[in-house]
Amino acid sequence: MQSLPLSNVWSLSNAQIAIEAAATVAFALSGLIAAARKRLDAVGVCVVAGLAAFGGGTLRDILMDRRPFFWVEHAVWLWLLLALCVAAMFFLRARHFALTERAMQWPDALGLGLFTAGGTQIALDASMPPIVAVLMGMVTAVFGGVLRDIVCNEIPRAFRDHQPYAVCSFAGAWVVVLAHTQGAPQWIGLVAAAATATLLRVLAIVLGWTLPAWQPGERE
Amino acid sequence: MQSLPLSNVWSLSNAQIAIEAAATVAFALSGLIAAARKRLDAVGVCVVAGLAAFGGGTLRDILMDRRPFFWVEHAVWLWLLLALCVAAMFFLRARHFALTERAMQWPDALGLGLFTAGGTQIALDASMPPIVAVLMGMVTAVFGGVLRDIVCNEIPRAFRDHQPYAVCSFAGAWVVVLAHTQGAPQWIGLVAAAATATLLRVLAIVLGWTLPAWQPGERE
Amino acid sequence: MQSLPLSNVWSLSNAQIAIEAAATVAFALSGLIAAARKRLDAVGVCVVAGLAAFGGGTLRDILMDRRPFFWVEHAVWLWLLLALCVAAMFFLRARHFALTERAMQWPDALGLGLFTAGGTQIALDASMPPIVAVLMGMVTAVFGGVLRDIVCNEIPRAFRDHQPYAVCSFAGAWVVVLAHTQGAPQWIGLVAAAATATLLRVLAIVLGWTLPAWQPGERE
Repeated sequence: MQSLPLSNVWSLSNAQIAIEAAATVAFALSGLIAAARKRLDAVGVCVVAGLAAFGGGTLRDILMDRRPFFWVEHAVWLWLLLALCVAAMFFLRARHFALTERAMQWPDALGLGLFTAGGTQIALDASMPPIVAVLMGMVTAVFGGVLRDIVCNEIPRAFRDHQPYAVCSFAGAWVVVLAHTQGAPQWIGLVAAAATATLLRVLAIVLGWTLPAWQPGERE
Repeated sequence: MQSLPLSNVWSLSNAQIAIEAAATVAFALSGLIAAARKRLDAVGVCVVAGLAAFGGGTLRDILMDRRPFFWVEHAVWLWLLLALCVAAMFFLRARHFALTERAMQWPDALGLGLFTAGGTQIALDASMPPIVAVLMGMVTAVFGGVLRDIVCNEIPRAFRDHQPYAVCSFAGAWVVVLAHTQGAPQWIGLVAAAATATLLRVLAIVLGWTLPAWQPGERE
Repeated sequence: MQSLPLSNVWSLSNAQIAIEAAATVAFALSGLIAAARKRLDAVGVCVVAGLAAFGGGTLRDILMDRRPFFWVEHAVWLWLLLALCVAAMFFLRARHFALTERAMQWPDALGLGLFTAGGTQIALDASMPPIVAVLMGMVTAVFGGVLRDIVCNEIPRAFRDHQPYAVCSFAGAWVVVLAHTQGAPQWIGLVAAAATATLLRVLAIVLGWTLPAWQPGERE
């Protein structure tokens, strides 16, 4: 009788690890492809992939003064990242880039949801005010890609492509805050938040939503 | 009899809050306009405005390992920033940019002075050596704009436009250090430093001062 | 009899300080020249030179939550940097840039070795896992140049020029880890690591080694 909830927790935890791994790989691949498009060398590819995968959570931890970082506590992930980059250099060809990016949209949307939910919860647990917790959730989910684009000498895609991305994270983060203030069990808030952000992102891709443009058709 | 100094302190404090608010809005607007010029979307506009307004103080606090950040302790400022960005998207047109920038030069100069004085004092209170305290004052006042320009994929304006900006901050910061080593009351040092930096900046704008150029007319 | 080892330690320490100073000047000059090429003003030149010289160690210390920074504990270095920049503005002409860069390759290679060894050892002393310690050694040696290039609005040279640079640091860092796990005296590990990274870098320059290219000749 006792084993059922425990095994459920165990399954949930395993499912969560699998989803997080898929999302992290999706983030890393986005960095890998961005670096390859810019013709970076092997070092640049590994660094940009690492920034895309771990940069958001690391920046959140620097802002919140949390240690150890995820990739210090679970250093095996650095080895996996290195293996992913080496494998990609052997097997990923330029003609696969567009296809890979399309395939990665879905684990990327999952990562957006998961990392938003996790980052917001961490900030709430540290007694941050709601708006700051939401910001920390967004930093976790979005700033890996921002750092990737800055190192590749591009204006960050999340700030210029007029597709809802950070906005989906924003909405999801408020679900965590709402569940927290209503006293709902933590896991319900996390699952609802991740689902909200991911679903909004999927809808934005499928339905082609765009953000309101700044001053359409008017030039300075 | 006792109430007079207290009410003076209260007035000074209120005046200071008003000036700081004006300066922060000026910094935020500089980010907002830079982002709009680069055709960023609504998310990018908010992030770049926030970096311009709070990035310098946040970087100083990261370097000095101080927590909480200003915008964590006074989270209402994040709401005000969001409101400012939304209002700007409705009311600020591209044809207003140049005008707004000209109007913002003066609160921006005030912010340069105030943030320099405040940042330097914070570093002195933490027993930093004088040159480090001066550097922290400059980081507080100048690096919001630097981060704004890096995210907008520009070489930071403070490093390339040959107008005295960081140099005014440098001069003001030394006034704080001088007052500190001479044992003057803290508020005198702060007011004198802020006035020095602001006045130098105003003179630089009005009189069109330029920094010495690097190797004029010579090419590699 | 006792004085011999002591005087040896003293000589080693003095030699080390001289080499570190030469390496830091080489790093600062790389920033100075990069800034001058981009026609930055005096402020930009000083900031970029400072980032190139101290940025790597500072970023490592932020990641590892170590304080005080090198340049806070030894603030005289900030004065030396300022003096170097002022002197360069008087004496360094554009026609000297290429020559200076060639001359700086050798102290730069020494800096690559020394800062790699030092950064890796600091991380091992803080009980970081081996791969994280290696990463910290590389951050120490390489990320000053990365920050220099980001502020100059370039893709970091270490990530795109296909010359082994970070890779030499990577190899040297593993020597520190190896010596540490084998229980060798610390100074042997440090000297061997610095020599390995420096020698590899010198060989890479002299023999014109290049990193494997990503998908040569294929376009998307």
